[in-house]
Amino acid sequence: MSGKTIVSPLAPNTFPTLPPIDGVMIGAYACGLRYQGRDDLMLVTLAPGTVIAGVLTKSKTASAPVEWCRKNLERGKVRAIIANAGNANAFTGKAGDRSVDESTRAVAQTIGCSRNEVFMASTGVIGQPMTTEKIVAGVPKLVKLLRADGWMAAAKAIMTTDTFPKVATRQAKIGDATVTINGFAKGSGMIAPDMATMLGFAFTDAKIPPRVLQEILRAATDKSFNCITVDSDTSTSDTFLLAATGTARHPKISETDDADLADFRRALEALMTDLAQQIVRDGEGASKFVTVTVTGATSVAAARKIGLSIANSPLVKTAIAGEDANWGRIVMAIGKSGEKADRDKLGISMGGIKITDKGQLVPNYDETPVANHMKGQYIDIAVDLGLGRGKSTVWTCDLTHRYIDINGSYRS
Amino acid sequence: MSGKTIVSPLAPNTFPTLPPIDGVMIGAYACGLRYQGRDDLMLVTLAPGTVIAGVLTKSKTASAPVEWCRKNLERGKVRAIIANAGNANAFTGKAGDRSVDESTRAVAQTIGCSRNEVFMASTGVIGQPMTTEKIVAGVPKLVKLLRADGWMAAAKAIMTTDTFPKVATRQAKIGDATVTINGFAKGSGMIAPDMATMLGFAFTDAKIPPRVLQEILRAATDKSFNCITVDSDTSTSDTFLLAATGTARHPKISETDDADLADFRRALEALMTDLAQQIVRDGEGASKFVTVTVTGATSVAAARKIGLSIANSPLVKTAIAGEDANWGRIVMAIGKSGEKADRDKLGISMGGIKITDKGQLVPNYDETPVANHMKGQYIDIAVDLGLGRGKSTVWTCDLTHRYIDINGSYRS
Repeated sequence: MSGKTIVSPLAPNTFPTLPPIDGVMIGAYACGLRYQGRDDLMLVTLAPGTVIAGVLTKSKTASAPVEWCRKNLERGKVRAIIANAGNANAFTGKAGDRSVDESTRAVAQTIGCSRNEVFMASTGVIGQPMTTEKIVAGVPKLVKLLRADGWMAAAKAIMTTDTFPKVATRQAKIGDATVTINGFAKGSGMIAPDMATMLGFAFTDAKIPPRVLQEILRAATDKSFNCITVDSDTSTSDTFLLAATGTARHPKISETDDADLADFRRALEALMTDLAQQIVRDGEGASKFVTVTVTGATSVAAARKIGLSIANSPLVKTAIAGEDANWGRIVMAIGKSGEKADRDKLGISMGGIKITDKGQLVPNYDETPVANHMKGQYIDIAVDLGLGRGKSTVWTCDLTHRYIDINGSYRS
Repeated sequence: MSGKTIVSPLAPNTFPTLPPIDGVMIGAYACGLRYQGRDDLMLVTLAPGTVIAGVLTKSKTASAPVEWCRKNLERGKVRAIIANAGNANAFTGKAGDRSVDESTRAVAQTIGCSRNEVFMASTGVIGQPMTTEKIVAGVPKLVKLLRADGWMAAAKAIMTTDTFPKVATRQAKIGDATVTINGFAKGSGMIAPDMATMLGFAFTDAKIPPRVLQEILRAATDKSFNCITVDSDTSTSDTFLLAATGTARHPKISETDDADLADFRRALEALMTDLAQQIVRDGEGASKFVTVTVTGATSVAAARKIGLSIANSPLVKTAIAGEDANWGRIVMAIGKSGEKADRDKLGISMGGIKITDKGQLVPNYDETPVANHMKGQYIDIAVDLGLGRGKSTVWTCDLTHRYIDINGSYRS
């Protein structure tokens, strides 16, 4: 884990202060699983009656905590979430399942709830046996450290190769009432979420039935975490959980399409997009933040697939790192996506400057302004396929030497 | 195109001398399209009666020469193949089509054949207008340079970021007769062929009907070029052409499953695997040659998809570059492939040493011999899924700093 001390050049300059949410208490603790001199375990406790929704990795080799969450999400009830950094508890066989059993039992016994109301998430090295006793021993200490304002400490406790903590907060109106949504997440390699991100947690005081909460979380995930990529690698541990304490007083919500939910859905999507973009900003080795907007595709799904094909292409990403306006590689990445494209209708712009139109370089193309755009930290790529109304925006970062430095020696 | 002078550490120590093939003449010439002081145009002429088969990129933004080849392959007849390096003639609109028209017309008129018997392939930068007049002016000069032993010169003329020319030769028995197959190819980035490689050409004196030739070429491609990857990026220009002059005397071949063809099919597959592996050895920035063998999958297609998921993973490839036996990332890559896997049946070996068995680290796992294996130039990864009889082998290289150096400034 060399070179973690350098903070990403794309890190935000300031971090928001997250307000307390009635019924949510947060603690962080250094249990010494892998890291020294920093917190690596966090616990969130939730008031009785809190409901939960979640999206989990589609990986066929998902971690033991992911399988545990998948099973318990069906009941939709939560009293605690425990998460650790340093060990992913993935590909650890029956011992991994036992580790989840023991960790969640320790939490359940300490706070007094049913074990299947305790959710767990783990991030770190794959395939190493978990030293569960350190977690079990940490639980009573964590419970004593619980605070209403422990958000930033928790966000820091789940960091691995992240160079900054990722927190976000939004407010939304439901009827006349104002509800809060707080969230935090961690990246920052093995990022091509296909349901969720590495680890992310959000909490609200809104009162929303679990089935509805699950549906709006899924919709927001599709427009946020499922639109980012760092390196096309999908983690065994991707988890995003959303807990609603229901302590706010607002009109009763019973359906996903309830008009009173519109502002909450907007706020949730904004919060999740904020966290997802922070993960890209902290992508391993990232020096540039890249926005790829695809329009004119045959469908939204086709637009997103083409966007991700561009955003995942090592040749596009290295060209961006090299500040080279190599739009030919964008053509290549569109071509390899497998989605419908017509060479003679394709338009490409970078930094708002049209480069190709109807399948050819624009007349008298001057690369100077595009080359200047490539020197900046924020790169915009826009592709119009000229075929239909499908539109999608995805976010990624460039592929630099630091990605190789970080990942050539992650375990050492 | 910086740093091209360093030859890949995985380059072969010696190159075979390719024997002449009756009816095949080869020439190379420096027409000055992009490179200075080296050949960049090659012409192969073929005796009347020569038939041709080909596999071409599946890219939806295929180059103008690819579309030209696709159209003419249906007729199955060939008298000449012309290829250039430095400009891919891809995404060049109608002007690109005109360039192919003029180039193939120049060849047809000079050697006296129909224009649709002239095949063309181009490799290099995408999206730049072609200076066709340099090719047209080069054709009469090329015709004067034709030789029966021009193989190596032609292999060199099509190189771009390649650091060594790729040639191979095999012999096969058809009945009592011995026939020859010669081939050459170029890589070495944008390599995830999905039909063929960047550019490859093979020639034989066997007499095989075009329909049969096409079928055996497709089968051999599936086990050779479709099993390699450098960076998961699929070129707009991938082309592999196989021409058969029919000058050898052997029993008549009329069906793909003719028993007399068995040895020829074996030899063709061996020649194409040889060329495909040379492309991996010259993968941009490659320092290690990686063989991934997947067994026990539910089908051959599933095995290949899992193998390519491992071979394309940036996290697996950077770990190999860093000589880190990070088998957890192999688990991750299996999981993200989307193919069926059962955590509790999975076995992983590296360098022939079993690391995991039935979903867990083997008891008393000692990483020392695996770490020693990782220090070598040839890395073997074997995965057994324990589910079925599907088996596939794919080849790739590691992801190093040089890949980023080469591709951050390709156009400059």
